[in-house]
Amino acid sequence: MPTYCLTVSYDGTDFVGWQRQLNGPSIQAELESALERLFGHPIACRGAGRTDAGVHASGQVVTFRSERQLPDRALVFGTNTHLPDSIAVRAARVVADDFDARFSASGKLYRFHIWNAPVRSPLHQRTHWHIMRELDVAAMQAAANRLVGRHDFAAFRASDCERKTTVRLIRRLELLRPRPEVEPTVHLEVEATAFLKNMVRILTGTLVEVGRGRMTIDQVAALLDSRDRTQAGPTAPAHGLELCRVDYGPRDAP
Amino acid sequence: MPTYCLTVSYDGTDFVGWQRQLNGPSIQAELESALERLFGHPIACRGAGRTDAGVHASGQVVTFRSERQLPDRALVFGTNTHLPDSIAVRAARVVADDFDARFSASGKLYRFHIWNAPVRSPLHQRTHWHIMRELDVAAMQAAANRLVGRHDFAAFRASDCERKTTVRLIRRLELLRPRPEVEPTVHLEVEATAFLKNMVRILTGTLVEVGRGRMTIDQVAALLDSRDRTQAGPTAPAHGLELCRVDYGPRDAP
Repeated sequence: MPTYCLTVSYDGTDFVGWQRQLNGPSIQAELESALERLFGHPIACRGAGRTDAGVHASGQVVTFRSERQLPDRALVFGTNTHLPDSIAVRAARVVADDFDARFSASGKLYRFHIWNAPVRSPLHQRTHWHIMRELDVAAMQAAANRLVGRHDFAAFRASDCERKTTVRLIRRLELLRPRPEVEPTVHLEVEATAFLKNMVRILTGTLVEVGRGRMTIDQVAALLDSRDRTQAGPTAPAHGLELCRVDYGPRDAP
Repeated sequence: MPTYCLTVSYDGTDFVGWQRQLNGPSIQAELESALERLFGHPIACRGAGRTDAGVHASGQVVTFRSERQLPDRALVFGTNTHLPDSIAVRAARVVADDFDARFSASGKLYRFHIWNAPVRSPLHQRTHWHIMRELDVAAMQAAANRLVGRHDFAAFRASDCERKTTVRLIRRLELLRPRPEVEPTVHLEVEATAFLKNMVRILTGTLVEVGRGRMTIDQVAALLDSRDRTQAGPTAPAHGLELCRVDYGPRDAP
């Protein structure tokens, strides 16, 4: 029985999040329903990251099993015909039976989008956090550099996060202005082995405090050492966040 | 009585276009209604470009008159509080009495967005035309170069376009891949003194025919000479188009 692996993108605006829930439409429920129509039997999907309500994805990874054999291309295009415009399967492949979208992952890349201008942008409202005052991006990068590496990120997780170990390795944490001549956007890109609940949003909220001049670079370093969530910045809003890529080791790589 | 000039951006998805119409919500009606609430009297707006249903703007220019004096900043933020999320005033200034948003314009910049990948992108569906097959962007640019300059663009206008003169000057017509390492987008940027009805969308549709290998560079040049709309490519969809900037002469410049 083949295990299929999909790369999925979605606009999370109108969903309660990746995970199937009783209180509204989820990406998982939409995807399972589309796959069930294609395969003709019930399907249970597993996602690499449980993105929150409103969070977007360009590279969520999802696995499921079926007795039926389908070529990759037929799986991509067949599933997309049954999905709403807000969700699309980008790629498909068959993986080893013991491949697990979540536990086989060796890392993830998230991007957080900020629209940094006095006035909000209608064309960026679904995907960017609007911050009116000009951010000191150089200061944010200097603070970000203090967080790169293997650390205990207990200060940067939601209060209801249930992970036992809070040590994570941030491989890269970069502030970028992708097209400064065209638009006032600031992107925060973060690659890590794994993330705690709300970690990227709290990292972003904290670095934005630095960018606003409300927190110093040393205070961010001290916050990391303190392991105290109450001293971190606010949790940045979900709609600015995008799960861009999930990485796997050489054995599991596409 | 001051004449006010606004720079306005909007997500055109849910509108019948810039111009007030009976068959649905327009940008103009929303903006006039917001200005009326701010100024306390009826306001008639005039836009630099009459964008079609579904077309977006980051730099539409709009003028109106009022007896009341309001500082630029109060006008920007005051109007925005009365506008839906899909429309925002970016800037305001007072201009000369004889300034006309449309007729004083010395040029405009439009951008057309293409998502060029086998699978559609949920995060780009409102703003990008999805083209599955990989476009030959170099061929498109070569064809575009034949259109730059002062020409009779009768072949590149809607059949119901009422302009008497069809000669226009295209100053720049560029195909760009703004972030090829991040996403498969192709942008067409076109600057001209003025445009005929649907001109950018027909230019785009025609250049896409070249990118698909269905039309040669010489055929595009012949099409221009023919002045025959029936030989041009299809009109590209409205939702890929964005009015980015309107230029004015030194006397009228902001």
